[in-house]
Amino acid sequence: MKPIHVGLLGLGTVGGGTLTVLRRNKEEIARRAGREIRVVQAAVRDLAKARAFAGEGLDLTTDPMAVVDNAEIDIVVELIGGIEPARSLVLKAIQNGKHVVTANKALIAKHGNEIFAAAQGRGVMVAFEAAVAGGIPIIKAIREGLSANRIQWLAGIINGTTNFILSEMRDKGLAFDTVLKEAQRLGYAEADPTFDVEGVDAAHKLAILSAIAFGVPMQFDAAYIEGISKLTREDIRYAEELGYRVKLLGITKRRDDGIELRVHPTLIPEKRLIANVNGAMNAVLVNGDAVGATLYYGKGAGAEPTASAVVADLVDVTRLHTADPHHRVPHLAFQPDQLTDLKVLPMDEVATSYYLRMRALDKPGVLADITRILADLNISIDAMLQKEPAEGEKQADIIILTHVALEKHVNAAIARIEALGSIDGRVTRIRLEELN
Amino acid sequence: MKPIHVGLLGLGTVGGGTLTVLRRNKEEIARRAGREIRVVQAAVRDLAKARAFAGEGLDLTTDPMAVVDNAEIDIVVELIGGIEPARSLVLKAIQNGKHVVTANKALIAKHGNEIFAAAQGRGVMVAFEAAVAGGIPIIKAIREGLSANRIQWLAGIINGTTNFILSEMRDKGLAFDTVLKEAQRLGYAEADPTFDVEGVDAAHKLAILSAIAFGVPMQFDAAYIEGISKLTREDIRYAEELGYRVKLLGITKRRDDGIELRVHPTLIPEKRLIANVNGAMNAVLVNGDAVGATLYYGKGAGAEPTASAVVADLVDVTRLHTADPHHRVPHLAFQPDQLTDLKVLPMDEVATSYYLRMRALDKPGVLADITRILADLNISIDAMLQKEPAEGEKQADIIILTHVALEKHVNAAIARIEALGSIDGRVTRIRLEELN
Repeated sequence: MKPIHVGLLGLGTVGGGTLTVLRRNKEEIARRAGREIRVVQAAVRDLAKARAFAGEGLDLTTDPMAVVDNAEIDIVVELIGGIEPARSLVLKAIQNGKHVVTANKALIAKHGNEIFAAAQGRGVMVAFEAAVAGGIPIIKAIREGLSANRIQWLAGIINGTTNFILSEMRDKGLAFDTVLKEAQRLGYAEADPTFDVEGVDAAHKLAILSAIAFGVPMQFDAAYIEGISKLTREDIRYAEELGYRVKLLGITKRRDDGIELRVHPTLIPEKRLIANVNGAMNAVLVNGDAVGATLYYGKGAGAEPTASAVVADLVDVTRLHTADPHHRVPHLAFQPDQLTDLKVLPMDEVATSYYLRMRALDKPGVLADITRILADLNISIDAMLQKEPAEGEKQADIIILTHVALEKHVNAAIARIEALGSIDGRVTRIRLEELN
Repeated sequence: MKPIHVGLLGLGTVGGGTLTVLRRNKEEIARRAGREIRVVQAAVRDLAKARAFAGEGLDLTTDPMAVVDNAEIDIVVELIGGIEPARSLVLKAIQNGKHVVTANKALIAKHGNEIFAAAQGRGVMVAFEAAVAGGIPIIKAIREGLSANRIQWLAGIINGTTNFILSEMRDKGLAFDTVLKEAQRLGYAEADPTFDVEGVDAAHKLAILSAIAFGVPMQFDAAYIEGISKLTREDIRYAEELGYRVKLLGITKRRDDGIELRVHPTLIPEKRLIANVNGAMNAVLVNGDAVGATLYYGKGAGAEPTASAVVADLVDVTRLHTADPHHRVPHLAFQPDQLTDLKVLPMDEVATSYYLRMRALDKPGVLADITRILADLNISIDAMLQKEPAEGEKQADIIILTHVALEKHVNAAIARIEALGSIDGRVTRIRLEELN
């Protein structure tokens, strides 16, 4: 069969990785796909630099629209990132009847509903395995591998930067700021790390996973997002003493009344496999009603791991590009007319367990006050840890782990505890998930 | 669209689970597949018992050939297990133009080449996700999710019974025989546990994984198989002291001169995620040249986890059953005319690291003799542990971890060490893999 023709938008880290993998494994990939997958054109910013990397035999242009409009091209691979011009280019490619492969999580999380509707109308595929968890085939696992299941919840370490920072804080007992600087030096964190550190990147990926797990539209704007920049090494150490690890998790659960969609630091029992996912690695734990818990682990970023997902999508699209659309896997796992409109629940209505830490004056009655407040709000205590006051200090740390409670009740309890005369400063609250 | 009609061969544990999952998640599955997947007939052994379980509305028969020959049926699901009559029924179903879904690892490992050729000739699909690692979508991950990669090796805990036994031996410091009895009592091990305990079941699954990873035919007959029944708690404890866990791994590697295909107890560094997979759980670690290491974890057996894989295959087949065969994923991941004939290497040619334990008289010169033998055979030592002789004994355990060496050199060294006058009894040899 004649080669399928691919046009790349962007030849940076992932674009370069994609070209490298397609060239190095050309024969292996053709043996699987049944035909060659050939990059015929790439839109780049710097022609000279790109030419040096790409060698001869590849048409380079600085005009991405030239790729999108190229009649020779069957599949457009969007690796520019960000919203514009990526969104317009993808929509134009679809309008031109081209299939699209993208690694752009922000674009899919924010404009996926629009893009999939356009693709559906035009009868083309938009594949986005590389948008979540890099080389881990998690989209395929959920959308196809677990299609027998009513998926109940999933929880993922889906941002490598924050997992690297948390692993280092734990291993070396260092503060967030110190580790962040190290991560920036090593290239694990951007110069402006906000996007990763404050959980926005993880929330993009989580919105995508939630949609395909539950058959709902993307609801990124409704996600609750809390990052790791306020985590202290003390909390990580106390969590450890209590048998937990702290991870930045993206969590989504289906309930009868709606969907939980939240990214925040989370205590996890150290015995869970996902608690032992360290460094910049990613992992997603998916719970289905038939299969139980399954976990998927691998590199969530980097040129070739991400290219691995891009190229796997290219093979899938190559295989199905002339097939009737009803032979294809639906973009959001469920048939487009079968999505439900389960809404994201407000954070107040989320039910989970909590780690609470407070500084208390070392005097009688303090614990009685605290436990009374919790009991009044129907919050039951699972474990408590009271530290001795440090030498020469009058205040001691009290750590409480609660059973499952409503977030609004816990927030109310925190307000009352902070109002006690015997409590110094704010109460630290970190959510806790048993993940069983 | 009208429902797709499924016929079940067998309504035991997995057949019952399949019917249960298809009925409970009927709407969820139809929302994904675009049409209902309906079981219309099942071949069973005991009609009365099956009727009580299946209720009305399902045609039951004791004649499996009636299902295979039923013109109303689109997909035959083979859940009888074993070689015959399963093989004849599957071949007849294919001949009748029906697609087949099977959970039968022995059948696929031993007769897959014949079955896939028949299916290829008739233009039908044979899906077998449930044959390996139960509910973990590992076939899909390797065959489709990692299709960009030249897969270099994979290593899996793919037998739950043995992983349960090894976990218990480690946790409780018990002997193999004691734990086996407990496992039998709990239903984790069969009355005749040979098949699981001696590694044959894992080898069936490994042969399948190796074929789809490397694009080679099934070569089960050439697999090296060693079980766990000779493992002692002492070896598990010594491994622990050295920072390793002992797991029964199925390992397959591609080398330029052939393929390694072997099942045996293996020391793994305790820091590896797969070393922390405990109880009856399964996990497969796959290493591709682009993606690096990825791991897939979940329940490897049981009614509903296995049914999860059977039904996922049913959804895939439903989606593609009227599509041109070239739109489908090839049975063995690679196009049928693109398989290579890389042969399985003899065990003598395998290169790995080793744990060696021996009992030595506590007298001068013993270590010098041993290390001289190893050096003469080009085996270098990575770590050594010499235990004090127990009170009143004159013999001490010596444990040696080697760097990577050829199996035939290690076997030669063992023979020479055992011939030393200062060594009592046999040398225990367990292979060791760094998995990095």
